[in-house]
Amino acid sequence: MRKDQKRTAEPDHPAGRPAGGRDLAITLTRGAGPLHRQLEDALRAAIRDGRLTAGEPLPATRTLAADLDVSRGVVVEAYAQLVAEAVLQTVPGGGTRVGDRPAAHARAARPADPLTTPRYDLRPFVPELSAFPRRAWIDATARALRGMTDAQLALPHPTGDAGVRATLARYSGRARGVRAHADDVVVTSGSMQSIRLVGELLRRRAERVGAAPAIAVEAPGFPLHRLSLEREGLRAVSVPADAGGLRVDALPDGGVDAVLVTPAHQFPLGGELSAERRAALIGWATTHDAIVIEDDYDGEYRYAGDTPTALQADEPDRVVYLATASKTLATALRLGWMVVPPALRSELAEAKLWADGGSSALVQQTLAALVVSGAYDRHVRRSRDRYRRRRGRLLDALAVTMPDARTVGAEAGLHLTLRLPDDVAVARIWTAAADESVALMAIDVGADEASGGDDHQLAGPVLLVGFGNLPDALVDDAAAALGRIVTAARSRPY
Amino acid sequence: MRKDQKRTAEPDHPAGRPAGGRDLAITLTRGAGPLHRQLEDALRAAIRDGRLTAGEPLPATRTLAADLDVSRGVVVEAYAQLVAEAVLQTVPGGGTRVGDRPAAHARAARPADPLTTPRYDLRPFVPELSAFPRRAWIDATARALRGMTDAQLALPHPTGDAGVRATLARYSGRARGVRAHADDVVVTSGSMQSIRLVGELLRRRAERVGAAPAIAVEAPGFPLHRLSLEREGLRAVSVPADAGGLRVDALPDGGVDAVLVTPAHQFPLGGELSAERRAALIGWATTHDAIVIEDDYDGEYRYAGDTPTALQADEPDRVVYLATASKTLATALRLGWMVVPPALRSELAEAKLWADGGSSALVQQTLAALVVSGAYDRHVRRSRDRYRRRRGRLLDALAVTMPDARTVGAEAGLHLTLRLPDDVAVARIWTAAADESVALMAIDVGADEASGGDDHQLAGPVLLVGFGNLPDALVDDAAAALGRIVTAARSRPY
Repeated sequence: MRKDQKRTAEPDHPAGRPAGGRDLAITLTRGAGPLHRQLEDALRAAIRDGRLTAGEPLPATRTLAADLDVSRGVVVEAYAQLVAEAVLQTVPGGGTRVGDRPAAHARAARPADPLTTPRYDLRPFVPELSAFPRRAWIDATARALRGMTDAQLALPHPTGDAGVRATLARYSGRARGVRAHADDVVVTSGSMQSIRLVGELLRRRAERVGAAPAIAVEAPGFPLHRLSLEREGLRAVSVPADAGGLRVDALPDGGVDAVLVTPAHQFPLGGELSAERRAALIGWATTHDAIVIEDDYDGEYRYAGDTPTALQADEPDRVVYLATASKTLATALRLGWMVVPPALRSELAEAKLWADGGSSALVQQTLAALVVSGAYDRHVRRSRDRYRRRRGRLLDALAVTMPDARTVGAEAGLHLTLRLPDDVAVARIWTAAADESVALMAIDVGADEASGGDDHQLAGPVLLVGFGNLPDALVDDAAAALGRIVTAARSRPY
Repeated sequence: MRKDQKRTAEPDHPAGRPAGGRDLAITLTRGAGPLHRQLEDALRAAIRDGRLTAGEPLPATRTLAADLDVSRGVVVEAYAQLVAEAVLQTVPGGGTRVGDRPAAHARAARPADPLTTPRYDLRPFVPELSAFPRRAWIDATARALRGMTDAQLALPHPTGDAGVRATLARYSGRARGVRAHADDVVVTSGSMQSIRLVGELLRRRAERVGAAPAIAVEAPGFPLHRLSLEREGLRAVSVPADAGGLRVDALPDGGVDAVLVTPAHQFPLGGELSAERRAALIGWATTHDAIVIEDDYDGEYRYAGDTPTALQADEPDRVVYLATASKTLATALRLGWMVVPPALRSELAEAKLWADGGSSALVQQTLAALVVSGAYDRHVRRSRDRYRRRRGRLLDALAVTMPDARTVGAEAGLHLTLRLPDDVAVARIWTAAADESVALMAIDVGADEASGGDDHQLAGPVLLVGFGNLPDALVDDAAAALGRIVTAARSRPY
């Protein structure tokens, strides 16, 4: 190999190694692909091998570029990519260092499709994917398989393994105050399936009596669930939500079979249903013999004040409680569960049987093994602490970059709800966000939807900023990008 | 503890240890539960710990009973239970030894619910659950997680991960001649879900044009799929099947949107669709613009002659091919896939999205890792060899215990199809099987269903004997039990 084809950071050159002084031994080869990609890979390898560890400072871009005899742009581009992946972090005041949890990030290498991977993933609902406890999951898989009999490898019970259901019933009781026995649990492939199964039950019940099924849903609310219920053939009746959650007083006086509600942390406005509204909701359901579907999509994450117990505990005979591992572990697991009133059990079990024969026994046993070992609770607790800190940092940063926005809703969940100045056009937020490669949600809350009195008034442009999957190192940058996006979306820019 | 409360097989007593001479150190304690259960557990522990290894002979029941100072019945009962679980095997000519794969069995301990666990599980469809490659699955889980980016832990693509789909497309091409590209694959939670999704597509298509959806199904056929389609709102039109598979000439001349067929190994009669029938089937589908659903439920298992390639290869634009890991690995995985014509892709992707948001990324990546490593193919090959041998042994044994039965269908799959003497009453088979604690299927094939000419004539009582999950050591005993069952079900018993 010719000498000019290789560029090496010499071990004895201080610029070629981190402040800790260990040898980086980075070698770039011309003609073997883009140099910045090679540098990225070399840094990932150094982190993977332990030559670079969490928190270690990296050489300045200028110094490393000189050392490797490449243009400074090569180093800048490599660092930027690794910062975006949270493998590296920018240091307040300048400089770059190895991230807090570099191994998990470096392991992942480059995202499969960088074109569709946003620079900042601020979608609500997405938890910190890099924090998924990969090692613990593998160990739990092994434990689960060791504990499973051969008979448990046959077709599972449609509502789930009895032992798993008992574990999940206890967990929901402990974590959320749900009143449940193993027999009340239906293991599903996530909340999308849970909603679909309940929707099917409502449709079939209505069909049996020749009626048209209808369900009350929050407006604004989670759009996918509404669409799913409509696809199943139900008429969705909008009931306004405000900063205090579902406007229970606005529920229709009959004509619907059920109501879908997010009591602990209304999606998307963030409100928590008060004791008065909860009582009124149960009263309404009893009067109209309606089913209440409680979507407890992020009930584990509460950062201040008392965590409200699940609404299900107020009336287990009328509330279908939906839980999910998508926000606590990873969306990719496709694992959730329902706690269902005795009167709905057999119909929901039947619906689940015909939907897919029951959820994967291995996945549900692995989740149960994780819960039984205590690893699940530990992971939730650690995640909660991390999200709480990140939420605080993000609010601090946004106070600077978006001084005119007002935070609303409970201190809970994986997203901030920000009421923007009146002159912000939501459509222009979407455009500006695309320009900045930021994935987020913005909605226009109608006056009717948020007419809950002065305290609850929210009507206007609302921005949802998910921070679950936002690396800590990118909080300030993301806040700056959000500031630019909102400015660009105002009719009277600063 | 009083001396008379403990019974120990002394290490220096030859009867207390296997022929190999290693110390069994079995201790039974009176008052600590049934003695035969204690002995079972002690033997399981000895196998688990490696003190007893595969093939080792055990002491004669009389000897071990004397040694432990218990009645011989205690030892007989313990041995019988462990033989039933395939932990132990009976030796031709008498005696008992440790089974071939004792660790997997002993690990499983006692089935969770012995009351509902049959003595012989002869249901069709159930593969050898004790052969599930537990270690390989755990390793593949670890490999899959190592290879997954954080982004792959988010909501999966509704039709499955692109890399997984490419792997499954190649596998189906290699193993079954399916003509597929990654884009043609929809990963599902097993064939029950696949059928449901196709049923939903057919229903929605018919609804869009104001028609009533209908599908032709084999009679006899797989009852669950028919019920699932009917539950989805389709009218199921029976088309007779005979020993040559679906009677293609009997397909209705219009009025149905699709046909569900098992070309490689008709369920339950075992026939293989001839080249002529295949061509006629594709011709019929083309003429009537109908979709063909090919349920290739056990296409991997062919024991003689050439394996027919999948029907899908004859007309990829019209055939939906259903594959499953339920017969090759374990039903509990809930994992299958479809290869779908381009014209159905987006509708099926949408149906899958709303059904559950996509199948668990971890499970599909683990299956793909197993395939890529070659472990999946090896497991299928080994299973095929084992099933082939077992099938031969079972046929030999049944020739003695059921001399009047006639085997029909291709040498394929996980079950035998036996045409029983005319005077057997199917209802009495079910009763007798329950008495013998044997799980099986028996059906009455109507004259109309099997009127395919002399060669194909099957009308009458038909017994399906699944041997996938029948331990080799129990083949003779199961055959004897089947002989007793059939005798009891005859109107003119021997």
